[in-house]
Amino acid sequence: MEHLLSERIKSTPPSFIRSILKTAADPEIISFAGGLPNPISFPQEELLVSMERIVRDYGSSLFQYSITAGLPELRQYIADRYNRKFGLALGIENILITTGSQQALDLISKVLLNTGDGVIVEKPSYLGAIQAFSQYQPVFYPVELTEEGMDIGRLKDALDHDVKFIYAIPDFQNPTGLSYSAENRECIRKVLTGREIVLVEDDPYGELRFDEGGRIPYIGAGRLPGSILLGTFSKTVTPGMRTGFMICADTELLKHISVAKEASDLHTNIFSQYLIWDYLMHNDYDAHIAQIRRLYKEQAQAMTEAMDRYFPKTVKYTRPRGGMFLWVTLPEGVSALSLFPKALEKKVAFVPGDPFYINMANTNTMRLNYTNADCRMIDEGIRRLGELLREI
Amino acid sequence: MEHLLSERIKSTPPSFIRSILKTAADPEIISFAGGLPNPISFPQEELLVSMERIVRDYGSSLFQYSITAGLPELRQYIADRYNRKFGLALGIENILITTGSQQALDLISKVLLNTGDGVIVEKPSYLGAIQAFSQYQPVFYPVELTEEGMDIGRLKDALDHDVKFIYAIPDFQNPTGLSYSAENRECIRKVLTGREIVLVEDDPYGELRFDEGGRIPYIGAGRLPGSILLGTFSKTVTPGMRTGFMICADTELLKHISVAKEASDLHTNIFSQYLIWDYLMHNDYDAHIAQIRRLYKEQAQAMTEAMDRYFPKTVKYTRPRGGMFLWVTLPEGVSALSLFPKALEKKVAFVPGDPFYINMANTNTMRLNYTNADCRMIDEGIRRLGELLREI
Repeated sequence: MEHLLSERIKSTPPSFIRSILKTAADPEIISFAGGLPNPISFPQEELLVSMERIVRDYGSSLFQYSITAGLPELRQYIADRYNRKFGLALGIENILITTGSQQALDLISKVLLNTGDGVIVEKPSYLGAIQAFSQYQPVFYPVELTEEGMDIGRLKDALDHDVKFIYAIPDFQNPTGLSYSAENRECIRKVLTGREIVLVEDDPYGELRFDEGGRIPYIGAGRLPGSILLGTFSKTVTPGMRTGFMICADTELLKHISVAKEASDLHTNIFSQYLIWDYLMHNDYDAHIAQIRRLYKEQAQAMTEAMDRYFPKTVKYTRPRGGMFLWVTLPEGVSALSLFPKALEKKVAFVPGDPFYINMANTNTMRLNYTNADCRMIDEGIRRLGELLREI
Repeated sequence: MEHLLSERIKSTPPSFIRSILKTAADPEIISFAGGLPNPISFPQEELLVSMERIVRDYGSSLFQYSITAGLPELRQYIADRYNRKFGLALGIENILITTGSQQALDLISKVLLNTGDGVIVEKPSYLGAIQAFSQYQPVFYPVELTEEGMDIGRLKDALDHDVKFIYAIPDFQNPTGLSYSAENRECIRKVLTGREIVLVEDDPYGELRFDEGGRIPYIGAGRLPGSILLGTFSKTVTPGMRTGFMICADTELLKHISVAKEASDLHTNIFSQYLIWDYLMHNDYDAHIAQIRRLYKEQAQAMTEAMDRYFPKTVKYTRPRGGMFLWVTLPEGVSALSLFPKALEKKVAFVPGDPFYINMANTNTMRLNYTNADCRMIDEGIRRLGELLREI
């Protein structure tokens, strides 16, 4: 049936991570490859209590078909939380529940992209986003990501092309762990003001800032009319239930996305929406998040301290202040991909940088996740990687 | 942002039913418009017991990210059940769990359709399928549905075009309630044998046959290599949890669909997959289904008996032997759509036939659902419709 396939699917790469994860399934391997939240994030006991309560209180509504936009009570909770934390003025009409943020990426491209339309992404960018967008055969314009955020000069150059949307992860970016500075955000906002372009700000990790303190405002949310903000409960409650959300001031745009969602899966699992909403209403969500943040801070520190100890000085790495990943840059000319099988021999895994770029091979970068191994394992894994890196 | 929209979304109609449902939300209205299963289908108490058991037994696996193809245990259960009931030879590699059957319709079109490719659908066909396919801008070739099944002459004519797939609902079709005869299935199979075309058989209602007795074999499953069979737990356990499945002998084709799924939502809610699997393993599923079938048989009979009593003889209707819907044909020239507001005045709702056709307006047909009102309400609703129909 090969010749029956659409051009679309031929240009959609299978996820490199998901193939790698199969290779790295050996339980003896210390894996920094996946992007799994630590199970501490799942409030299992509390969720079980919520399950019992909602079955008793809401009965068949939990199991019946539901509306495409999502549970009004959950959307109201989200609107209230963002209004309170970021001084926004959202109502439930600005919120659409999605089947994880991955679906949001698919729906946005579905609604905006004709073949050949331009999309600006960070260089490097999240591979799941590249995969979702690729299905709609756009032309990618990658813009260099620096310690400060997007390279503004290159962003302006990219905007000379016919671009439908910009995809950015301003906090604790996947894969790099970098965050955009307040100044960089302000510059981007100025560059985009008045332009007919959608800014998609993906924020799965914003809640995972290691240290207390005010968050930097979003680039677009509340400020650029066509901007879309993505959020999720995957990193703070459960990824397995695939419950994300999209926030957009432009309700007309959101209506089109809602039609695409209706055609794609009718609505997101309503049981899980009730469950997460009930959990949020009956528990101290912020205290739960604080617990995750403390753990991830320890784990990230264990990883960078081990790198300080075991890695040669020619190897560079980011020092994230939140999120789940850090990014390693090897000396120029060294292919992280070619190191991958040797690392597996030493029973340690990472993701080579290539799939985070558009059509690049044998880059000298790699992504490491620190949230799903304990500090002792992190130290041991980095020690083994260090051995390998001293041989190059 | 209107001019930023893709051609794709401009050609995707919003669901007529979902707009209608809003109009018909008035609790005083007797609604035959939706397609809601009766809440008797949801084994709430048993599901709660399963929830408690799986949280205890599987812990964090319920809440973590999972594989795209779906829970192996659930896929094995599905393979076993179909092998037993239909003499198939499926393994778990032939099963992909989808976020409801609606996602299956989206993914199949995503993987097969380039703009302008042909799709054969029944005339009339399921509006959610027409909506899903429309996103990929195909050319539709509708083939008349008769009391026997697809009109074979017209099917052959349609196959003269460049067609990627055929979409059919051979048992208790939505919207008509008609089923394909064994002879008709055999004819279709012969016509398709040796052709490079995918047959998509959608079977959400097959389990809902009113009377015991052997089911007629599928057209393609186990016989046509490129055929895809769709199934779901939406009508027999819960639609709210959006758990459907795709069965396909061609594992290469299924791999491509799996890549599209990965890009669309990573995987289906894993908690719900564990839950449904545990429910199936610990309860008498067939006894549960038998209970639903008895109720729907009563409800369908109540509806056709009321039609016999209250409808003028010029109005025709199908007499389904299973499923959730029946189809009414008014005298030629009478628009069901123009009757709709008058019916609402009498506090009764149905779906005018138009959205079940490709680009047809003011057809003389309507779809009625009988599963979500009790027999007394059904009688009263049909009596009111009868009053209206005697005025035309």
